[in-house]
Amino acid sequence: MKRVVLAYSGGLDTSVCIPVLREHYGYDEVIAVLVDVGQPELDIKEGVDRAKKLADAVTLIDARDEFVRDYLFPLIKANGDYEGYVLGTAIARPLIAKKVVEVAQNRDAEAVAHGCTGKGNDQLRFDAIFRATNLAVVAPVRELSLTREEEHVYAAKHNIAFESEKRWSIDENLWSRSIEGSELEDPAAHPPEEIYKWTVSQDAAPDKPELLQIGFEHGVPVTLNEERMDGVSLITTLNELGGTHGIGRTDIIEDRVLGFKARENYEHPAATMLLKAHRDLEGLVLTRNELRFKAAVDQAWGELVYQGLLMDPLYDDLNAFINQTQKPVTGTVHLKLSKGLARVVGRASPNALYSPAVSFDAKAETRIVEGFSVYHGFQSRMIRRSCE
Amino acid sequence: MKRVVLAYSGGLDTSVCIPVLREHYGYDEVIAVLVDVGQPELDIKEGVDRAKKLADAVTLIDARDEFVRDYLFPLIKANGDYEGYVLGTAIARPLIAKKVVEVAQNRDAEAVAHGCTGKGNDQLRFDAIFRATNLAVVAPVRELSLTREEEHVYAAKHNIAFESEKRWSIDENLWSRSIEGSELEDPAAHPPEEIYKWTVSQDAAPDKPELLQIGFEHGVPVTLNEERMDGVSLITTLNELGGTHGIGRTDIIEDRVLGFKARENYEHPAATMLLKAHRDLEGLVLTRNELRFKAAVDQAWGELVYQGLLMDPLYDDLNAFINQTQKPVTGTVHLKLSKGLARVVGRASPNALYSPAVSFDAKAETRIVEGFSVYHGFQSRMIRRSCE
Amino acid sequence: MKRVVLAYSGGLDTSVCIPVLREHYGYDEVIAVLVDVGQPELDIKEGVDRAKKLADAVTLIDARDEFVRDYLFPLIKANGDYEGYVLGTAIARPLIAKKVVEVAQNRDAEAVAHGCTGKGNDQLRFDAIFRATNLAVVAPVRELSLTREEEHVYAAKHNIAFESEKRWSIDENLWSRSIEGSELEDPAAHPPEEIYKWTVSQDAAPDKPELLQIGFEHGVPVTLNEERMDGVSLITTLNELGGTHGIGRTDIIEDRVLGFKARENYEHPAATMLLKAHRDLEGLVLTRNELRFKAAVDQAWGELVYQGLLMDPLYDDLNAFINQTQKPVTGTVHLKLSKGLARVVGRASPNALYSPAVSFDAKAETRIVEGFSVYHGFQSRMIRRSCE
Amino acid sequence: MKRVVLAYSGGLDTSVCIPVLREHYGYDEVIAVLVDVGQPELDIKEGVDRAKKLADAVTLIDARDEFVRDYLFPLIKANGDYEGYVLGTAIARPLIAKKVVEVAQNRDAEAVAHGCTGKGNDQLRFDAIFRATNLAVVAPVRELSLTREEEHVYAAKHNIAFESEKRWSIDENLWSRSIEGSELEDPAAHPPEEIYKWTVSQDAAPDKPELLQIGFEHGVPVTLNEERMDGVSLITTLNELGGTHGIGRTDIIEDRVLGFKARENYEHPAATMLLKAHRDLEGLVLTRNELRFKAAVDQAWGELVYQGLLMDPLYDDLNAFINQTQKPVTGTVHLKLSKGLARVVGRASPNALYSPAVSFDAKAETRIVEGFSVYHGFQSRMIRRSCE
Repeated sequence: MKRVVLAYSGGLDTSVCIPVLREHYGYDEVIAVLVDVGQPELDIKEGVDRAKKLADAVTLIDARDEFVRDYLFPLIKANGDYEGYVLGTAIARPLIAKKVVEVAQNRDAEAVAHGCTGKGNDQLRFDAIFRATNLAVVAPVRELSLTREEEHVYAAKHNIAFESEKRWSIDENLWSRSIEGSELEDPAAHPPEEIYKWTVSQDAAPDKPELLQIGFEHGVPVTLNEERMDGVSLITTLNELGGTHGIGRTDIIEDRVLGFKARENYEHPAATMLLKAHRDLEGLVLTRNELRFKAAVDQAWGELVYQGLLMDPLYDDLNAFINQTQKPVTGTVHLKLSKGLARVVGRASPNALYSPAVSFDAKAETRIVEGFSVYHGFQSRMIRRSCE
Repeated sequence: MKRVVLAYSGGLDTSVCIPVLREHYGYDEVIAVLVDVGQPELDIKEGVDRAKKLADAVTLIDARDEFVRDYLFPLIKANGDYEGYVLGTAIARPLIAKKVVEVAQNRDAEAVAHGCTGKGNDQLRFDAIFRATNLAVVAPVRELSLTREEEHVYAAKHNIAFESEKRWSIDENLWSRSIEGSELEDPAAHPPEEIYKWTVSQDAAPDKPELLQIGFEHGVPVTLNEERMDGVSLITTLNELGGTHGIGRTDIIEDRVLGFKARENYEHPAATMLLKAHRDLEGLVLTRNELRFKAAVDQAWGELVYQGLLMDPLYDDLNAFINQTQKPVTGTVHLKLSKGLARVVGRASPNALYSPAVSFDAKAETRIVEGFSVYHGFQSRMIRRSCE
Repeated sequence: MKRVVLAYSGGLDTSVCIPVLREHYGYDEVIAVLVDVGQPELDIKEGVDRAKKLADAVTLIDARDEFVRDYLFPLIKANGDYEGYVLGTAIARPLIAKKVVEVAQNRDAEAVAHGCTGKGNDQLRFDAIFRATNLAVVAPVRELSLTREEEHVYAAKHNIAFESEKRWSIDENLWSRSIEGSELEDPAAHPPEEIYKWTVSQDAAPDKPELLQIGFEHGVPVTLNEERMDGVSLITTLNELGGTHGIGRTDIIEDRVLGFKARENYEHPAATMLLKAHRDLEGLVLTRNELRFKAAVDQAWGELVYQGLLMDPLYDDLNAFINQTQKPVTGTVHLKLSKGLARVVGRASPNALYSPAVSFDAKAETRIVEGFSVYHGFQSRMIRRSCE
Repeated sequence: MKRVVLAYSGGLDTSVCIPVLREHYGYDEVIAVLVDVGQPELDIKEGVDRAKKLADAVTLIDARDEFVRDYLFPLIKANGDYEGYVLGTAIARPLIAKKVVEVAQNRDAEAVAHGCTGKGNDQLRFDAIFRATNLAVVAPVRELSLTREEEHVYAAKHNIAFESEKRWSIDENLWSRSIEGSELEDPAAHPPEEIYKWTVSQDAAPDKPELLQIGFEHGVPVTLNEERMDGVSLITTLNELGGTHGIGRTDIIEDRVLGFKARENYEHPAATMLLKAHRDLEGLVLTRNELRFKAAVDQAWGELVYQGLLMDPLYDDLNAFINQTQKPVTGTVHLKLSKGLARVVGRASPNALYSPAVSFDAKAETRIVEGFSVYHGFQSRMIRRSCE
């Protein structure tokens, strides 16, 4: 019996894939796997219901804790960023793919499938994990070049109930919500307020600012206003809090893996606050040499994750570097939330490379700096003088 | 006759230097040079008045146009940044030093002097330019390790009128205003609202957002809301406009050249808006390869400028790269100003590497992407498979 | 009439392409373009003869001067290197492709073709240039997945005379000769002496060492032993001279663009000597800051060229940086050639950042270095002390 | 009682320091510590004898095993290099300084001292470690700006027997031998054969080449010709073997920490062979992504070590990255030694990212590469086309 395991999201693309895998590819059994990485509860419920109608078997996996511990915490330590994007969808795909592979291996399936199109990044992220196994990889939407219109026709034929086409393409998880497509594709079009669901507009935010303290241990956020919280709760709470103040929107031109430039809009209140706080704390405790080099490491980390290449051993190498740097990244950062902005207004750490003594107006020591000054720019002076 | 030319700011340090250069160093003639790089008019006027009383000669040089053309425009093209700081003071020092050297050479002085202490960055920036000449370099405050208290005593003795010590140390020019010292030295202390002069607080900003269009040609901002403006006017206007909306404050831990970490606060509305707009436009018109490598070039540029090493030939090399990249950086960026935030909401360029055709839901092409996918992460798959 | 222009080398792959383009692709006219970038004269002669028999028209283009001026001189300035490989074949492909495109445009062809397989790098280098036009791109060997064996059968059928299959796959131009394939594919197999044609083995080299002086102007080699020579002559002479001494062999594992690791062997006497001399001279005249950053620029340059992406604007950006750095790279480097080795034994430049005065045992200055030493490693000391 | 511990080498500088520390600095007791990091046995013996005559106490510490395990093995994994220099002296200084500090702490000394001048790098390397303690740091030669001539006069006065001044300044340890000074300071002067002691000249090397196999485990060399050897023996043996073949000489212009450019000559047969073999093996087993990023890590590692900043936490961060990469660096490299050259002629590893299957002339797969090719250089094509 030919069995395939499908990464199922509940949306049109993956729903259509189920009958296609049977009819076009000849699979006898299609198992739909829905992985919870913090999507809206309703989406998950509807997805499971729909899958039950379509697939031979449905598996719902709550991977939220694993998502935070093994993916988002490393992301925070790496100041996870790609061209200004907080890597929300990108960092979730490898985990979803991994769960799908696990089900496939447990159920002796011969293939794994995803519903990604041939234009985006997600196909490559799923493929990167899928292809690292001996399972066959099936990508019906890409392989058949299905358009949304064709999918709707096909869905109707199979009584797959979908409201009419949504205006934008949305992806949501614990870390971010992305909105793309339709008129937003035009880089010059101003995004309408309706695209946002997590964040209020600035004028709808309360007038009164709110002060917040985020506590870190070894680079990982562990307390909010001095209360210890598990990762999922901390991020969920910060998303709500930040969203109330209108914090965490991004509007960028992004270079997709294949080379297309795409206009993307994102919401991510917790990410904005946690990343800002984490970077600031690093500035207090890491040496300048560490800060400079870690910037290059972080950049490479973001690049790899965006491409979905967590299986490249470089990913482990970079994390080894990052984890070593995070040992002293313990302390508290004060944020002031107001009208769309989260500003750092103070920070403290037992490992601060800052000492009041150093900045004190000490009498005896300054003349000696001349010895530093003499060698500062020494080589360029040799050139300029010889040109006079 | 021994003649020295002093980089004069009008403040306590440089005012005290004038009699010290005579009494302690034995100079017969002290020429005070005050360079206008956009300080408040009143400060300049008071400075000139005070200099006239103290120095043998006073020269006021209006260098604002040169500052914008030869320093700030290159900075914008380089997305000028050092650890989150917009490089305001740093980029002005070499120009001031250059003007002082020119006066010294024209007037046959044998020495140039500055009033910087031995703790900060500015001593090194002045020295770097000063030492590239055959002039003697005198740094009285550093060499005598003068404290502020000692300076006040000395000033009183010489009837140099100064109000009592200011609470914070301020530096201002066209690009930014920096505030440091006193209780702000403690990284954990929240900055009081009084330190800000260019920007209102978020709650004092108007409720109504304001839309703005900044036009660039070859990386240089040339229009505001479609009106062509010279650089000084454009920056001045944007500082006022942005300040009204509370835009452009920075609170960071900064690594000084000598290695001290210092807490610094800055205001820079125009810089915030221009840099954000410029980066965004680059994202639309530069190739991904260019964006990646230019990030490294920009980082090196910021590092060099922070250190005051504009005389290193690397500075010219980096600018050669940057100027080449800026050829297509022409277009318009739309900003929405509101309550402390400037958000990019749209952008357009005749050189956009974006084509609606590319993102269109074309039927025929997607299967071919499998050929890309096969080689994406190819090497890591060889490893993972061999471990199974 | 359907007309196609083929990048023709004279070898089996491209020879077979001619009838294939007619029979399989239906072209009415096949124009073979053979571009001389310094291949052995006999190869070119045989190639032209063979092309005349097969193709509808043949064009031989002597591009050697252009190759040196516009490709190899920039390569020398960039210390052209990819994982230890001197980029010989890589740097020639874009020029050949450009010439083919020029012929196609002049002759109103509708397509351009190359004979590269689907495993290597050259297909991508040709495609990168070809696809930047509106011409159709045809790659018969890749598209039909032709094997060497199939090609031989096909050639025999068309009376294309070829000796039996060569043991190794060879590519030669003015800058290097590459040898790959057969038993050499095994990374552990020692390369037999027979694969080398430009260089003698070490024991066959003369016992007497030879001293050589190479003179550079702005990064470009212009004299040999004080005699001014044009680029083609200089490189040709150095290849002969170096080959006599057994200089310039490389045996490496190389990462191809698609991700395969391949074992490659190369010969390149002139390249070895010119690159070694050029790097050494740079060490004498560039500032440390320049040397560090240029290493990153050179690395990116080599990467782009290896991939054949000379059309990426980053290529021009990098060259702008490099050309600026080369202004002072003028001077002479002394090499000692002997038994497979070219050692730098001396160098001189009017722009040397070296002054005997600086290294002289001057009495008065050393105490001041303590001021430098105090700030050297300053931040790390703050950490270590606080841990005691 | 005032006690100081001196890093003692046996040479003129440090010998003179002993009476100077008593007479000029007023120390009651001077303890000379001589650390064996592989200097010539005779030098150590003479050093100890001389120290016994001069100092109040002498400690000889054999640190060779620690030197190899904790310094040279990490260096090999990091492909240790600074502008072409194998970092011999640089990597030994921190270990010597550490041993001196340990003695000082065990013996309740209040100060540590070194005999370095104020021109070189070693003063900064010693200081960096010394200053990380609470001990006073004394640098008599630098502080008193002693010249060699003055030292000879002073030594004679104290009956410190020294032959007349050596022509060159030499430093030797297990990893390399450096020669500098005198006529060699002129970058254009050819180095005379007499400066070399570890390596014969090429014509004195045997005509018959020698094949060698070096075995690595996790980046560390462990076998020579299949025989397992401890690190000190392996390096010693390779130095002898390589020296016999004239392998491992360097003649470079080097940028010292203070900014002086200096001409340096080195010998290091084992280093040449081990580094070449290690790099080659990495090329076989690391992914391209790893190779690219590790090159930057290695460069930063070499930079830090050259500066003596092993106490910067960045050093540990870089090593964490490097150690993670070295897990698969296990295998054997074949070298052919002949007439001054060590050439890699083969390599094998169980973790090779190379498979004969991949390079096999497989029929079915090449067409698919077109899908890769289409996206190769995609963005640059958008530009070039739009310009037509």
